[in-house]
Amino acid sequence: MGLLIKNGTIVSDSAEWISDILVEGEKIVSIAKDIPVEGHEVVDATGKYVFPGGVDEHVHMGPFDSYSFETSHAALVGGTTTLVDFSPQYKGMGVIESLHKHNEENAVGKASPDYSFHAMIMENSDKVLDEIPHMVDAGIVNLKLFMAYKYTPFMVEDDLIFKCMQEAKKYGITIMVHAENGDLVDILQKELRAQGAEAPINHSYSRPPLVEDEATSRAIYMAELADCPLFVVHVTTKGAFRRIKEAHERGLPVYGETCTHYLVLDESYLAKPNFEGAKYVCAPALRTKDHGEVLWKAVHNGELQAISSDHAAVVGGFEAKKRGIHDFTKIPNGAPGMQDRLHMIWTQGVEKGRITRQDFVRLCMTNPAKVCGIFPQKGALLPGSDADILIFDPTYRGTITLADQYEGTDYAAYEGFEKKGIADKVYLRGKLMAERGKFVGERGQGRYIKPKPYTKSYDEYHKKKD
Amino acid sequence: MGLLIKNGTIVSDSAEWISDILVEGEKIVSIAKDIPVEGHEVVDATGKYVFPGGVDEHVHMGPFDSYSFETSHAALVGGTTTLVDFSPQYKGMGVIESLHKHNEENAVGKASPDYSFHAMIMENSDKVLDEIPHMVDAGIVNLKLFMAYKYTPFMVEDDLIFKCMQEAKKYGITIMVHAENGDLVDILQKELRAQGAEAPINHSYSRPPLVEDEATSRAIYMAELADCPLFVVHVTTKGAFRRIKEAHERGLPVYGETCTHYLVLDESYLAKPNFEGAKYVCAPALRTKDHGEVLWKAVHNGELQAISSDHAAVVGGFEAKKRGIHDFTKIPNGAPGMQDRLHMIWTQGVEKGRITRQDFVRLCMTNPAKVCGIFPQKGALLPGSDADILIFDPTYRGTITLADQYEGTDYAAYEGFEKKGIADKVYLRGKLMAERGKFVGERGQGRYIKPKPYTKSYDEYHKKKD
Amino acid sequence: MGLLIKNGTIVSDSAEWISDILVEGEKIVSIAKDIPVEGHEVVDATGKYVFPGGVDEHVHMGPFDSYSFETSHAALVGGTTTLVDFSPQYKGMGVIESLHKHNEENAVGKASPDYSFHAMIMENSDKVLDEIPHMVDAGIVNLKLFMAYKYTPFMVEDDLIFKCMQEAKKYGITIMVHAENGDLVDILQKELRAQGAEAPINHSYSRPPLVEDEATSRAIYMAELADCPLFVVHVTTKGAFRRIKEAHERGLPVYGETCTHYLVLDESYLAKPNFEGAKYVCAPALRTKDHGEVLWKAVHNGELQAISSDHAAVVGGFEAKKRGIHDFTKIPNGAPGMQDRLHMIWTQGVEKGRITRQDFVRLCMTNPAKVCGIFPQKGALLPGSDADILIFDPTYRGTITLADQYEGTDYAAYEGFEKKGIADKVYLRGKLMAERGKFVGERGQGRYIKPKPYTKSYDEYHKKKD
Amino acid sequence: MGLLIKNGTIVSDSAEWISDILVEGEKIVSIAKDIPVEGHEVVDATGKYVFPGGVDEHVHMGPFDSYSFETSHAALVGGTTTLVDFSPQYKGMGVIESLHKHNEENAVGKASPDYSFHAMIMENSDKVLDEIPHMVDAGIVNLKLFMAYKYTPFMVEDDLIFKCMQEAKKYGITIMVHAENGDLVDILQKELRAQGAEAPINHSYSRPPLVEDEATSRAIYMAELADCPLFVVHVTTKGAFRRIKEAHERGLPVYGETCTHYLVLDESYLAKPNFEGAKYVCAPALRTKDHGEVLWKAVHNGELQAISSDHAAVVGGFEAKKRGIHDFTKIPNGAPGMQDRLHMIWTQGVEKGRITRQDFVRLCMTNPAKVCGIFPQKGALLPGSDADILIFDPTYRGTITLADQYEGTDYAAYEGFEKKGIADKVYLRGKLMAERGKFVGERGQGRYIKPKPYTKSYDEYHKKKD
Repeated sequence: MGLLIKNGTIVSDSAEWISDILVEGEKIVSIAKDIPVEGHEVVDATGKYVFPGGVDEHVHMGPFDSYSFETSHAALVGGTTTLVDFSPQYKGMGVIESLHKHNEENAVGKASPDYSFHAMIMENSDKVLDEIPHMVDAGIVNLKLFMAYKYTPFMVEDDLIFKCMQEAKKYGITIMVHAENGDLVDILQKELRAQGAEAPINHSYSRPPLVEDEATSRAIYMAELADCPLFVVHVTTKGAFRRIKEAHERGLPVYGETCTHYLVLDESYLAKPNFEGAKYVCAPALRTKDHGEVLWKAVHNGELQAISSDHAAVVGGFEAKKRGIHDFTKIPNGAPGMQDRLHMIWTQGVEKGRITRQDFVRLCMTNPAKVCGIFPQKGALLPGSDADILIFDPTYRGTITLADQYEGTDYAAYEGFEKKGIADKVYLRGKLMAERGKFVGERGQGRYIKPKPYTKSYDEYHKKKD
Repeated sequence: MGLLIKNGTIVSDSAEWISDILVEGEKIVSIAKDIPVEGHEVVDATGKYVFPGGVDEHVHMGPFDSYSFETSHAALVGGTTTLVDFSPQYKGMGVIESLHKHNEENAVGKASPDYSFHAMIMENSDKVLDEIPHMVDAGIVNLKLFMAYKYTPFMVEDDLIFKCMQEAKKYGITIMVHAENGDLVDILQKELRAQGAEAPINHSYSRPPLVEDEATSRAIYMAELADCPLFVVHVTTKGAFRRIKEAHERGLPVYGETCTHYLVLDESYLAKPNFEGAKYVCAPALRTKDHGEVLWKAVHNGELQAISSDHAAVVGGFEAKKRGIHDFTKIPNGAPGMQDRLHMIWTQGVEKGRITRQDFVRLCMTNPAKVCGIFPQKGALLPGSDADILIFDPTYRGTITLADQYEGTDYAAYEGFEKKGIADKVYLRGKLMAERGKFVGERGQGRYIKPKPYTKSYDEYHKKKD
Repeated sequence: MGLLIKNGTIVSDSAEWISDILVEGEKIVSIAKDIPVEGHEVVDATGKYVFPGGVDEHVHMGPFDSYSFETSHAALVGGTTTLVDFSPQYKGMGVIESLHKHNEENAVGKASPDYSFHAMIMENSDKVLDEIPHMVDAGIVNLKLFMAYKYTPFMVEDDLIFKCMQEAKKYGITIMVHAENGDLVDILQKELRAQGAEAPINHSYSRPPLVEDEATSRAIYMAELADCPLFVVHVTTKGAFRRIKEAHERGLPVYGETCTHYLVLDESYLAKPNFEGAKYVCAPALRTKDHGEVLWKAVHNGELQAISSDHAAVVGGFEAKKRGIHDFTKIPNGAPGMQDRLHMIWTQGVEKGRITRQDFVRLCMTNPAKVCGIFPQKGALLPGSDADILIFDPTYRGTITLADQYEGTDYAAYEGFEKKGIADKVYLRGKLMAERGKFVGERGQGRYIKPKPYTKSYDEYHKKKD
Repeated sequence: MGLLIKNGTIVSDSAEWISDILVEGEKIVSIAKDIPVEGHEVVDATGKYVFPGGVDEHVHMGPFDSYSFETSHAALVGGTTTLVDFSPQYKGMGVIESLHKHNEENAVGKASPDYSFHAMIMENSDKVLDEIPHMVDAGIVNLKLFMAYKYTPFMVEDDLIFKCMQEAKKYGITIMVHAENGDLVDILQKELRAQGAEAPINHSYSRPPLVEDEATSRAIYMAELADCPLFVVHVTTKGAFRRIKEAHERGLPVYGETCTHYLVLDESYLAKPNFEGAKYVCAPALRTKDHGEVLWKAVHNGELQAISSDHAAVVGGFEAKKRGIHDFTKIPNGAPGMQDRLHMIWTQGVEKGRITRQDFVRLCMTNPAKVCGIFPQKGALLPGSDADILIFDPTYRGTITLADQYEGTDYAAYEGFEKKGIADKVYLRGKLMAERGKFVGERGQGRYIKPKPYTKSYDEYHKKKD
């Protein structure tokens, strides 16, 4: 007695064809033409696309300023069945212990989609080097360091980044960096404030493209010297992308992602009047449109690997953002976006001819799963994979609006944007969780997925052969 | 009662996983875990890779100097289940009529693998423009023009190439070019002969990399001006590749392939003593090793789309080559290679860590099928695809030698090369055709596959949306 | 009894300093501080710049459609003391004999500035190869070939270009090319006319940037293969420039110039109503502004060597242009410009901060003289150089208007353009020829200057050592 | 009664011609043909080149490990008439005060050539920002910061570099950087020592090209953000050069020099046995030959502006170097080279066809003077310039050997190298100081030359117009 999805157009990252899919229990068991109906529950997907469930490789689900996994069912409504959160390091606590605490406090029993973690280093201390050999066992295969946020515990110095690279590569752990030059941002912020600048747009002026370009460049040089894979999160500029591309051309295992908002929004959103710009304060800042066009080409050409949401829904929403009404540096950082990532990328990308349907699957499902070390359990429609399935109706026409959001904030990042196509049915491990914009499942059933080391970043370069 | 391949590691161009495959009749019907054995013929593929059958997108199967499809079972022995031949234009005959004649005379009843055709223009006349609107119906979706071979009917002038581009794009036909500057080759040949040069190495001196670089550059400019996709066959030089890469970066639908011998052999083969160099006379000429290294990176990075054999087995083999013993320009052009393309690319590519297993499938199976307009009937292991299946044993160790060749010539192009891994079982539409180096099927059963227009070259750029 | 120019700011292509210059007879004899006045005629240049007289390396002074040297005093009025004309090849006559004929008929007794010639090949025949060994003696050190103008005697095929390169380099002759793909222009012209296109703007549509980019690329490849210097005349596009720059980076002796109008006008001039666009019909066509901005950077950075006028004043002016009123391909080609080249480059270049004063001298005086093989007799203020001196008053403010033109046409190419600075006094071999916009000398006294081979293009790469 | 140099071939950075030069007192007063001998002292320069005296823009004349100006007459023997030293910052003392102290203690009365200073910041403190407005008055127009030497007072952090850039540009002061990533060098040094590495070659392993590439990249990004000119001293790698070139292509005022030893020596010198490698320990380290070849092209193409010696003759010479015999990090840094810079560049550059004679003058005389703000008083043969004149005999053939050195060390950096051509006569402000390898003047008469702000780096970009 399984679930039988019939006659859909199955889309993978490299092909599309019409076939049936049979799910038994939580797994896909068969992909075949004309599977006999027998006693199965049959879903007719004729005229619809059948995708692997979305994998969002970059979200922030608490604690600090943003909501924890309690609102994570929003992702399911939008077709995303797996969230990969960044586990923070708690003050005075090791990275591994922090992950356990974060999981217990913010995820277990709250997560609605399945989930996994990357870890973040938030203490500029060599102590973390002793933890690295134990990280893979603890479920850490991507380790993020911040080159920004001077005078906070986040920012680490070059020497620690380099040492982490040297150590991490021994275990198949990929170093991720948030690439902005913290020294320069700090000076620019101070100069702007000294001149009396207050409005949200100054967030952008204090973090211009060059601070990202520089840090990206530096991270790549260090990774090259350490002979270590590197993954640059939220790439937003032409200049940073150019360095990644150059690195790739030199044969280096340097990868990166961009995020929905860097593709579909632009700097003008930060300049919205009545402090509305604050809704779009996130780091790196939104850029001018020319950067976005380059990023669309980059994802289409496979030169950036994935598109994530960098979802960080500030508790309190716009009201909370007003803490920075007279000081743009005090505006809480982050914007929501996990719910409509797939709708936005489909509408602005596939429907506008910027990317193909197969690109869509590669960028939003398959590659994120590979990067996170959870492929092909997630991110693929293969026999044996989890039955995370998105049936997508491309004929739907609608508009994104706050009333439909499950993200918990009092504004929708993409309010008023057109929505072509909709997540018609969303299955998590074979269970129907959402249907045409409504959450219909049970919350809190999301399961932790332990990642494997030697993720995409490693595999292509260091593990070509077993 | 089907064929059930159990427990193999299925490799696609984007994933690999362990699964069973069920074949019924000529088609793959199911890919699933633990398919019940029932009454099926079971093949145990444990520990082996299961690939789609190889697709060789560039072969010459007669008439002129080379063998027709009579020796094409050699391809099956090496794991290639589909050959795409270049149909020549007969003197005074249209391109379409020529294709029919060529098929009847050289392929029907002779072909052992399945096959399809590209067409070649071999008359510098605008008459072909009138045929273009009818070509897709006649099975022509790729149309090749020669920029080389001055003073032969092959070479066409820029204006005809450009007009073909303008016309072909209306119907989804991709223009292919053999890119060498015929004027320059002609001058260099004459100069060398005037100096008394005779030996095969002069073949290389008369066709230096710059003549290919120039023609490739010119073809790309014309395609850009005509706003038309372009596919450059047998790319061999760093300089030509650089132009293709640049074009891609400008967002142009410009594609290319390279061939086995440009990756694994080099110019020194042409300099072999005792006229042995003649065995390696083909156009473009073999290059120095530095070019090959760049080409390996290009195929790994997806910047060249496919690896073909450019198989052209000269009737009479080495003896026939001796027609040019005192004049390198009279050496019959072409080298065999369809049999061992996959073995060579696996051994020199995958085993040496230059490409991944998934690259191997993309370059030798999936992309060739897409380029030729026969995907996913060919080039994929999907429900509904033809059951062309290569079970590959990676543990085999051997050596390539003439005694094992089925290609009909009196020398093996890759004589003495190491062979790691072997085509263990090769199925064509569900029938076992070859096993561990021996042809075990029936010859002449190959079927013509009619290609669809809007191939890979078009799809990615012009057909992102339906 | 000499001419003593006192206290001017002398500007060379690498320095500027205040000094006196003493001229005796036709030569500069001394550059010194505080030269005693003695019996010399003293000119006070305090507050003015003292430049070498302008050298315009690319003009057309008849016969065909354009005025011969009879109006060449216009150049002197604008500060240009040497014109280098392109000598045409007469039908059925050799290149050398043609040069003599052209000189006798069009220059001797008519030229007001000094002058020299490049030669043009206008017959697609190998006969010219026999002339090459005798060209240097005959005063030909730059030999231009046309890649454009299909179905006219101008256009030569690749094989002749290549053979000329191989031969010319033996004698220190530089090959120049007019780089547009004649095949493509021809097709585009026919297509436009077939669609009923008439207006001058179609001149641009039929010669888009890509036809120049392609031909430039091809010429460079041929020069590289021939191991021969190349000079590309009137470079107008970003794409063509990119190829020249790339060539330079590969260490090739590839050079180029651009012209005034490609820097200061743009394609919109061709779209002027009432057939006014015809005034700006020249080949290559005017481009959009983005090309111009790249060209300004190129000349500033020394990546293009010179700025010429490509002056070709059509006899009859605008009236004559009307021959093409219903067929843009019949509009006589060419625009005037020798008079105001220096004023335009100073005003739009130096005054706008795009180039420095030293760039101005390098681009308009020194390098043209080097390229033409007449340096340092021309193009420099050195002891022993001809006393061709331009005293320039940077404080002048005025406007270019037809009333002030000496060029003979009924319109001024730069009508209405601002003129900052003026040629205050212009000396040719020590004689005052023009003063603040008025010709004050005697016409027809210009002298032929025989060029030396191994010009700038050769010198830097092939003659680093004697 | 002057000094009359007759019939020499005068070479400037853009021309060469035969002329006489008349010197009266300390100045050049006339450049003319056939100057009457009258009562002048006549020097016949027939067959010889007449260059401006060499300007060495990067030397270290004490205090610390290296000799002060007491041995500076060595420079004159080699044809260099001006040295520009880096004035150190003394502990606890301001940069300006330090310069005065350094001048008094190390230069006044000791310098034999004329001299000037750049200043170095050697304290990571914002206090220097208050000094910047006063620096030009104090003779500081180039201000160097170190990105290397972690845990010493030299190394400054990014924020101070950036603030200096922002402040310095207001006054026309150019920021110079020593570009090596100090964090990474420190880690690599510690790792090597931990592994027991001792020999001088480890100096190179601990400062690989990537540490220079990274720092150069970072400095350029900061300069771009600060909108400030940048001069990178001692560029040694392909990668660093690529960044400078890219910056130039983006239109940024980014400049750089390389040094004699990076052009003519290579990493193998550091591997010499018997601790001989220590003689070549300097920072950045010597590189492999491929880097040198790129640097030769860069200086020829004008993409690096100058060639300096980075002379730093360690007191005690090789004996002193032995302080690091068991610890390569303790080897005193620096190598001599001011004496033979011009001979080496001529022999290895001009005589080998890598650069032209005019390049030689531009790279070793004219541009260094421009960069240092002392042109055209120095670096040019113009009326009014100081009569610093190098008469060069290109026919000399000899060998560099310690016996001929005046540098004070017990080894010659270029021992055994061929010397083609010799500084025949070297005049400083009209006085003969050296003749064919012998010092014949009086020591200690060198004069301080106060530089002007807005040096070459500024001029070309920010001061195109007055």
